[in-house]
Amino acid sequence: MPMEMITGRIATNLEGLKQFTATPGEGCTRLPFTKEARGAVDYLKGIMADAGLEVWEDAAGNVFGLMKGEDPDAPCVMMGSHYDSVIKGGDFDGIAGVVCAIEAARQLKERGVVPKRNFVAVGFCDEEGMRFGTGYFGSGAMLGNRDVEYCKKFKDTDGISIYDAMKGYGLDPERIGEAKWKEGSIGSFLELHIEQGPVLDAEHVELGLVNCIVGIQRYMVTVHGRSDHAGTTPMDMRLDAVDAATKVISKIADWAREKADGTVATVGYIHTVPGGMNIVAEQVEFTVDIRSSNNDNINDITKRIRAALDYETKQMGGSYEMENKLTITPVMLSEEMLDIMEEDCKAKGYSCKRLASGAGHDSLEIGQVLPTVMLFVPSKDGRSHCQVEFTKYSDFAKASVIMTDLAEKLLTR
Amino acid sequence: MPMEMITGRIATNLEGLKQFTATPGEGCTRLPFTKEARGAVDYLKGIMADAGLEVWEDAAGNVFGLMKGEDPDAPCVMMGSHYDSVIKGGDFDGIAGVVCAIEAARQLKERGVVPKRNFVAVGFCDEEGMRFGTGYFGSGAMLGNRDVEYCKKFKDTDGISIYDAMKGYGLDPERIGEAKWKEGSIGSFLELHIEQGPVLDAEHVELGLVNCIVGIQRYMVTVHGRSDHAGTTPMDMRLDAVDAATKVISKIADWAREKADGTVATVGYIHTVPGGMNIVAEQVEFTVDIRSSNNDNINDITKRIRAALDYETKQMGGSYEMENKLTITPVMLSEEMLDIMEEDCKAKGYSCKRLASGAGHDSLEIGQVLPTVMLFVPSKDGRSHCQVEFTKYSDFAKASVIMTDLAEKLLTR
Repeated sequence: MPMEMITGRIATNLEGLKQFTATPGEGCTRLPFTKEARGAVDYLKGIMADAGLEVWEDAAGNVFGLMKGEDPDAPCVMMGSHYDSVIKGGDFDGIAGVVCAIEAARQLKERGVVPKRNFVAVGFCDEEGMRFGTGYFGSGAMLGNRDVEYCKKFKDTDGISIYDAMKGYGLDPERIGEAKWKEGSIGSFLELHIEQGPVLDAEHVELGLVNCIVGIQRYMVTVHGRSDHAGTTPMDMRLDAVDAATKVISKIADWAREKADGTVATVGYIHTVPGGMNIVAEQVEFTVDIRSSNNDNINDITKRIRAALDYETKQMGGSYEMENKLTITPVMLSEEMLDIMEEDCKAKGYSCKRLASGAGHDSLEIGQVLPTVMLFVPSKDGRSHCQVEFTKYSDFAKASVIMTDLAEKLLTR
Repeated sequence: MPMEMITGRIATNLEGLKQFTATPGEGCTRLPFTKEARGAVDYLKGIMADAGLEVWEDAAGNVFGLMKGEDPDAPCVMMGSHYDSVIKGGDFDGIAGVVCAIEAARQLKERGVVPKRNFVAVGFCDEEGMRFGTGYFGSGAMLGNRDVEYCKKFKDTDGISIYDAMKGYGLDPERIGEAKWKEGSIGSFLELHIEQGPVLDAEHVELGLVNCIVGIQRYMVTVHGRSDHAGTTPMDMRLDAVDAATKVISKIADWAREKADGTVATVGYIHTVPGGMNIVAEQVEFTVDIRSSNNDNINDITKRIRAALDYETKQMGGSYEMENKLTITPVMLSEEMLDIMEEDCKAKGYSCKRLASGAGHDSLEIGQVLPTVMLFVPSKDGRSHCQVEFTKYSDFAKASVIMTDLAEKLLTR
């Protein structure tokens, strides 16, 4: 199949899917259990059926397309990503991976591959967690990690729970357990996704072999000092929360740089209380987000932050709290599948490099229990989760071929 | 006159003045040109008349009480402070200095002092600048520094100008120029005020001999970086505005401490844009407030901040602006008058220390052109501009005696 044809088919599908947004002209807004989600799922069902796949939707809102193998009980090869988006997001984050999984099925058919095991293309529901403040809903349900209680617990900003949203969408949340695939039924999971970072684009590399989804620790730190008049209070009588907090914050990025292995640390939010120009701040709140493929690095930076806060708040005569908001340990992806794709890229003359994913994906949920691999395509200027998100259709085509080659290998051995 | 009597008289006056607040039970709110201001001025006129003073109100809303001297054309000795307050402020800031000036007149009378020159007790209008976002209105007008244009320019939050507020209060703003005292008519100005800082209270010192009103420079700094995904953007591809800004902010307090001469520097406000936990900040705004009795120190710290911003934003690859919001040069107070008061304190066994005023006062306006001195009484825990502001009446009594002694000396030579 000429690359132009593959590029064209992917372009047609992705352009077709652009219509399913709640914010036309302002990017893709496709929240779970909405009419935009329904439209996209129905569209996906249509192109899955056109590709000759057996199509169904499960109890969690995931959509599947099956290409039967000689032994349908052998662990399958599953490929896909999610069909939901953030609010006013881009047209590729998630959905491109679903389209390319269906494209892989088309190519497998065209190549005349006779699969020894099932090939399954999947579009997961609610990876972003945008609506209910959660995430990885569909892939989690497939693994048996979501139950009725979970569906009742989380609500959107209108107070609608996942449970009620599912009912309104035509799903029965009481049957969420049925979305679970039985143990051993999935042999490997393959996810194609845009990078959402600047590395491939900046280095003019065509494909990213994702060897790891980084671990994350997030904290909300509150430093307590004392509010005083900025003019009349001598320096040695102050408990200046800004002074103590910035003496810590100013080191955090350097600690990440020191690791020189892709570890990142970010303070994105600082809030001063009361925040007056002529008042010594009595309180500073700031966030810390640390990510690394090496969990020891995350723990080390966390430890250094605590030690610095201990020291600086003691120097000041104040105190602090450091509240953990999120802890995810790194997930290593399948070296075996990465090696296969790397060799294939070399043979085809596609430039590639191994890199970690700094963002979470369905593969984060799935990679914890199943052999999983991800392939990244470049994001222009690293922009994502916004309307200007852009990847060339021809890049998706290349990635789809590499992933189809991998799937073929896995299906025929 | 026994100290208990003096304390009692001051207490009676200050307790009487407490009624003139727009926020009863929530501290003193006595904005200029309001019925609370009118009430306080009328009350002051009453106790000035009771003290045998010749009383008048000028075109700017200042209230004066005159004790005639043998040569009424000789430069007078003026003593006082302001009668307005901030919103929900304390019962002493300003008004205590007016009451103690009237108390000085009473003591001078009781001592049988025959003044060679006039003694004038004054209550200035609108020192705080709370209502119109200005300050030192009455004392400025007395020096000829306020005109009709000025009165029309500044407005309160309801859109009422000083000009209109004055008219509503029964003053003719067109005659503001008449508030100016003719050159050479004021020989010296004496102001008694609460410290509004913690030094005297913490060190258990009874009186503060104010040798300087500090200079101030204020800046709004904006550091520009670039917004990026906190997970997917490698450290070496970021323009992290928080990293650059905090590397500067964390040093500012230390530069003030280094001076070890009362110089203070404060970053009270930091704002991060967009402020997301998982987004590298594209912009950080922060304020800097530097005060010192030594203007070179202020300039030096300003220079160091600029140099650090130059360096850190260059390292980052971003930029910054540093906008000057206020520049006041330090005002040195009269060493001669300070020496007289210091000797007197020693003789009376009152502990005292020389210190700078970190806050502005009418003496800041007046001290630029006339021999001026201030005497501070302790503020409990340094609290001021709030309801819990507290100074013992007996402390005011001691200060009033020292200032009366000084006035007597100046009046009889």
